[in-house]
Amino acid sequence: MGSGPDLPELVRRARKGEPLAVSRLISLVDTDRGGRHDRLREVAAALAPHTGHAHVVGLTGPPGVGKSTTTSALVAALRKQNRTVGVLAVDPSSPFSGGALLGDRVRMSEHATDDGVFIRSMATRGHLGGLAWATPQALRVLDAAGFDVVLVETVGVGQSEIDVVALADTTVVMLAPGMGDGIQAAKAGILEIGDLFVVNKADRDGAAQTVRDLRHMLSLGREDGNPEDPGAGGGWRPAVVRTVASRGDGVDQLVAELDRHRTWIDEHGVRERRRRDRAAAEIEAIALERVRVRFGDLRGRGALPDLAARVAGRELDPYAAADELEQAAGAALR
Amino acid sequence: MGSGPDLPELVRRARKGEPLAVSRLISLVDTDRGGRHDRLREVAAALAPHTGHAHVVGLTGPPGVGKSTTTSALVAALRKQNRTVGVLAVDPSSPFSGGALLGDRVRMSEHATDDGVFIRSMATRGHLGGLAWATPQALRVLDAAGFDVVLVETVGVGQSEIDVVALADTTVVMLAPGMGDGIQAAKAGILEIGDLFVVNKADRDGAAQTVRDLRHMLSLGREDGNPEDPGAGGGWRPAVVRTVASRGDGVDQLVAELDRHRTWIDEHGVRERRRRDRAAAEIEAIALERVRVRFGDLRGRGALPDLAARVAGRELDPYAAADELEQAAGAALR
Repeated sequence: MGSGPDLPELVRRARKGEPLAVSRLISLVDTDRGGRHDRLREVAAALAPHTGHAHVVGLTGPPGVGKSTTTSALVAALRKQNRTVGVLAVDPSSPFSGGALLGDRVRMSEHATDDGVFIRSMATRGHLGGLAWATPQALRVLDAAGFDVVLVETVGVGQSEIDVVALADTTVVMLAPGMGDGIQAAKAGILEIGDLFVVNKADRDGAAQTVRDLRHMLSLGREDGNPEDPGAGGGWRPAVVRTVASRGDGVDQLVAELDRHRTWIDEHGVRERRRRDRAAAEIEAIALERVRVRFGDLRGRGALPDLAARVAGRELDPYAAADELEQAAGAALR
Repeated sequence: MGSGPDLPELVRRARKGEPLAVSRLISLVDTDRGGRHDRLREVAAALAPHTGHAHVVGLTGPPGVGKSTTTSALVAALRKQNRTVGVLAVDPSSPFSGGALLGDRVRMSEHATDDGVFIRSMATRGHLGGLAWATPQALRVLDAAGFDVVLVETVGVGQSEIDVVALADTTVVMLAPGMGDGIQAAKAGILEIGDLFVVNKADRDGAAQTVRDLRHMLSLGREDGNPEDPGAGGGWRPAVVRTVASRGDGVDQLVAELDRHRTWIDEHGVRERRRRDRAAAEIEAIALERVRVRFGDLRGRGALPDLAARVAGRELDPYAAADELEQAAGAALR
């Protein structure tokens, strides 16, 4: 503890909006992954009292749909309204690269000198959690730093992206014309998770058809009512917004719809419930990660490789091997 | 145990290639998820001695690239060579739908009456594991049933899809012209995971460019050598195959490349290593899932919701909450 940075001082400076302090806190959070998390624990404890202000918005959709461009346009629109914005660009799909792609940083350079904007790329690596793991901690930092809106942008549509739902107050699902038909979108499981839909590149051929298909599928998919409908007749109906993010078209309307959703979730107690669900997922992820680290220690010490060789050699079934792993971990526990 | 089906008898019939027995075993595996897994354990133990024959091929790529069509064409090509094929169509991205989409089953109807082909759709739900969880068990069933080739087809490109790598002997990554530029492909993290690349819809504009871009990025990304290169100069160089799967073009070449890779991994000890890695991941997933189930019990009993409410209310930080959760789970342990 004594050898680390002065955490209360860092938190104080981050809350004053000092980008370097915010950046430093996120780095603390981001580099302590896979370890014993003593540092994460301290940071989380220091931040906890200051969180709960930010509107957390998740942006997801298939690669090539224009998420980066839309994020940048959203930042510009929110800044025009004098709101501060934190951006997390999360790439959960590359377990191999050590850092997020340069492009994520470069594209946002127009906001680089604006203190009301903070941008950070994170490459969440493989195993358990991905998004569910370090991202909530980074969100916590941006929230405590007082940003009005925090945008979480993910790459691709997969389980990790679905996990955005567990993080965001409002989830925006993006589509674009000509990226595969409606069935493909349904297969990707993105219809259920959107609070708001954006059809970007709306100046392209097929945009009207994409909007129609989307509206049709939404009406089918939600015919039993929104699963989060808190009461009779009070369900949220997701809007479909058309944008051409590259020239800013439709982005003000997108901001207005984000605000409308925020008001709705506040008024219907949904925001509070989502925050509790988010907290539950976070607590579970932390506890599971600790167990995983303990198993990982066993991997290092040869216990797991030995069990794996016996399973691969058909001497042992994987359940019996899991028993042995758990016993070894239990013996190592505390 | 006594009330369930006669497992040794089911396994015996599955090994004789009876589709109903195979189907029944997979259902046992698929429906026991989230429970205590007594049944999974029995099935795994019964199957373990009979596995290790199948060539497990993973197929992944963005939605709309033609994975379903390619899988179907591959099945036809392999059947022409008199090889038997098991297919698992896995949709890890929809945590909400209870079953896989009808389309997955319908499209394969041309093989419906062929006993040398077995097709199964699985919708792997949310939390921990996804693919890593029930899919290995279903693979184990198909392997033990004696299929020469087992194709695992996934939807989308995300962490769950990356997990295919942990399952397959050979991973095929599919792209198509006009689905976003090379950078998008790199962001999706799919270059690192392919043993073999397919550019499908190769009759479309831009196919030659997509192949060129892909070859270029592969040469950049792998310039330090294949991470699995087992020795000096012996690294695997992934081929890029062009296909028009809808009319079968290039599919025989794809089969030849699959065989070439299988021979290579056998000769270089890579197959054996991948199987050990797969077993290690499986053992860990089983053990972690058990822990998760224990935590889930606590969720049901109110311990986790209570902790989550305190974290959401900023009374408690999530690490302190995880401590309490672990203690409660430890107290409930065994």
